Amino acid sequence: MMSHDANTAIRFARIPEPGPLAADVFELVEDPVPALAEGECLVRTIYLSIDAGSRAQLDDRGDYVFKARVGTILGCSGIVGQVVESRNPAWHPGDLLVTTRARCARYQKLAVTPGQFIHKVIPGETPLAAHLGILGMVGFTAYIGMLDVGQPKAGETVLVSAAAGATGSIAGQFAKIAGARVVGIAGGEEKCRLVIDELGFDDCIDYKHGDIRAKVAAACPAGVDVYYENVGGEIQKAAFAAMNNFGRIAMCGQIGQYSGTGEAPGPNLMCVVLKRLTIRGFLVRDHMDRHGEFLAKASDWYREGRLRHHATITRGLENFHEAINSLTTGRNIGKQLCQVVEEPLA
Amino acid sequence: MMSHDANTAIRFARIPEPGPLAADVFELVEDPVPALAEGECLVRTIYLSIDAGSRAQLDDRGDYVFKARVGTILGCSGIVGQVVESRNPAWHPGDLLVTTRARCARYQKLAVTPGQFIHKVIPGETPLAAHLGILGMVGFTAYIGMLDVGQPKAGETVLVSAAAGATGSIAGQFAKIAGARVVGIAGGEEKCRLVIDELGFDDCIDYKHGDIRAKVAAACPAGVDVYYENVGGEIQKAAFAAMNNFGRIAMCGQIGQYSGTGEAPGPNLMCVVLKRLTIRGFLVRDHMDRHGEFLAKASDWYREGRLRHHATITRGLENFHEAINSLTTGRNIGKQLCQVVEEPLA
Repeated sequence: MMSHDANTAIRFARIPEPGPLAADVFELVEDPVPALAEGECLVRTIYLSIDAGSRAQLDDRGDYVFKARVGTILGCSGIVGQVVESRNPAWHPGDLLVTTRARCARYQKLAVTPGQFIHKVIPGETPLAAHLGILGMVGFTAYIGMLDVGQPKAGETVLVSAAAGATGSIAGQFAKIAGARVVGIAGGEEKCRLVIDELGFDDCIDYKHGDIRAKVAAACPAGVDVYYENVGGEIQKAAFAAMNNFGRIAMCGQIGQYSGTGEAPGPNLMCVVLKRLTIRGFLVRDHMDRHGEFLAKASDWYREGRLRHHATITRGLENFHEAINSLTTGRNIGKQLCQVVEEPLA
Repeated sequence: MMSHDANTAIRFARIPEPGPLAADVFELVEDPVPALAEGECLVRTIYLSIDAGSRAQLDDRGDYVFKARVGTILGCSGIVGQVVESRNPAWHPGDLLVTTRARCARYQKLAVTPGQFIHKVIPGETPLAAHLGILGMVGFTAYIGMLDVGQPKAGETVLVSAAAGATGSIAGQFAKIAGARVVGIAGGEEKCRLVIDELGFDDCIDYKHGDIRAKVAAACPAGVDVYYENVGGEIQKAAFAAMNNFGRIAMCGQIGQYSGTGEAPGPNLMCVVLKRLTIRGFLVRDHMDRHGEFLAKASDWYREGRLRHHATITRGLENFHEAINSLTTGRNIGKQLCQVVEEPLA
């Protein structure tokens, strides 16, 4: 057990075998709490974001863009934390913040400059964890992917794969806000129930039982106008088959391929010609100029009760590998987080 | 041998086996020369358009949209013809015209109305056959597909499959006019020579010899920004692998699949996410409101010597099946036509 005052970080100890991660893929290491330069502050990490890239970066195979090097401290797509010491007049001890591209450490030395992607969290307005979910990068990804790329119109049918996942669960809610009929695809009865009852989707298909093509056709009797793609494989083929003329496919990811199993063939693309489909891939980092707009709208929608927050939280930095396993084996519902310390009292 | 004054039409006699067409798939039948109603005229067909659909419509399998029924007179995507009799004040005997969706007959009874897609050809301005090529529907297809969907910019690299084919040969020329570096893919030395020397492409890859991926990479050292897709299969996979970030793929067709061989798997689509590609299918019939604009521009470009016409002409209605075989076996260079009678003297 490490001291509460230590600067604990996660070192990438070895390349994992395919499948769920063993504990010894990572190693908790202690560094001295870093001294601050002018303009910097020290932040205690409360929540770490866990996402598809958390697993994909560990493989030496596969086509994921970012690769971690063995022996280094892992990067993390985002944290929520609290300032404990500051040499920047804009930040004070106790301030809550959210930032991207942090290192996975309990104490972060952050150089706070106007150019950085970092902003304050107003305590009490929204749940802290939501700043890595509906108000975080996954929310922003869903916003760009669904509303810019997919462009659902009122009355259209939108199909969302990985509908209980971090991005899909939010993308579907944005499509509902746009006035579409929204059908999710998720694994298992429990997830499908939650997607309908808690997230407000109109229907949700359990891909684990029955013929996926027949189920998509039955759940989308008017065909599919927008498909939000997160998974690849047979679900992708079923969605392509169900597309209407002039349909749009927003390619967010293919999570089925993030565990080092290599490239499977894709769907035949003749349907793209005959149905005049548009398939567009996107990475949210190309759209950072839209982040302020997203944050304002998503915050409003949350306050109005039109956007709901759901997260799966694994506790303890020592369980970091299990937090990733929760995501890759599909046990998570909504955004997957690793909680490092308790939330501060309001 | 039929009389010159007969109304000879092509009847679809039987479903063909896969592969090249035998002569008895069609039957030349004689109908009386039809009487004209008010507003109609009688047209002698000079050139018949032969295109991918000419073969695809004959199969009882496959996913092509238009299917011919055995026993009926075949439709044809377009003809160039000459008015021989008229009951429409706008048309006079001797007028040359081009029209789409004609029946495959030596004499066409055409109801000429302002709403119809039919227009006069000014003798001498452009070659008659060009009105089914660079100035015809394939030219229009290439115009929409390359300039609207592909949107090449000056200095970008454009890759065109079936570059010696009817649409590809024109699409590449439009990309040159837009200022791009244009690389074709064609089958055989002779075609590649012609694509470079006569059509002005910067380079052309012979897909029949060597590793297609390596050849595309070598011919496109700066990667591919726009891929104009006509073929599917291994060439498609090689093109996907060579795409640059933010590349556009204009899906015009997959001619490899038009001979009843069924659906092959497509490329894995993870690259679409990572490279933020846009893949868009189109059918030119959705864009008929742009036809006038296309015709004006393409005619100008032809007169300025920036757009070159090339056609492969099979003579005689009795060789209609060979005209289709010329296209499906890739013997044609440029637009494939079947010539029914000699061109009138100017």
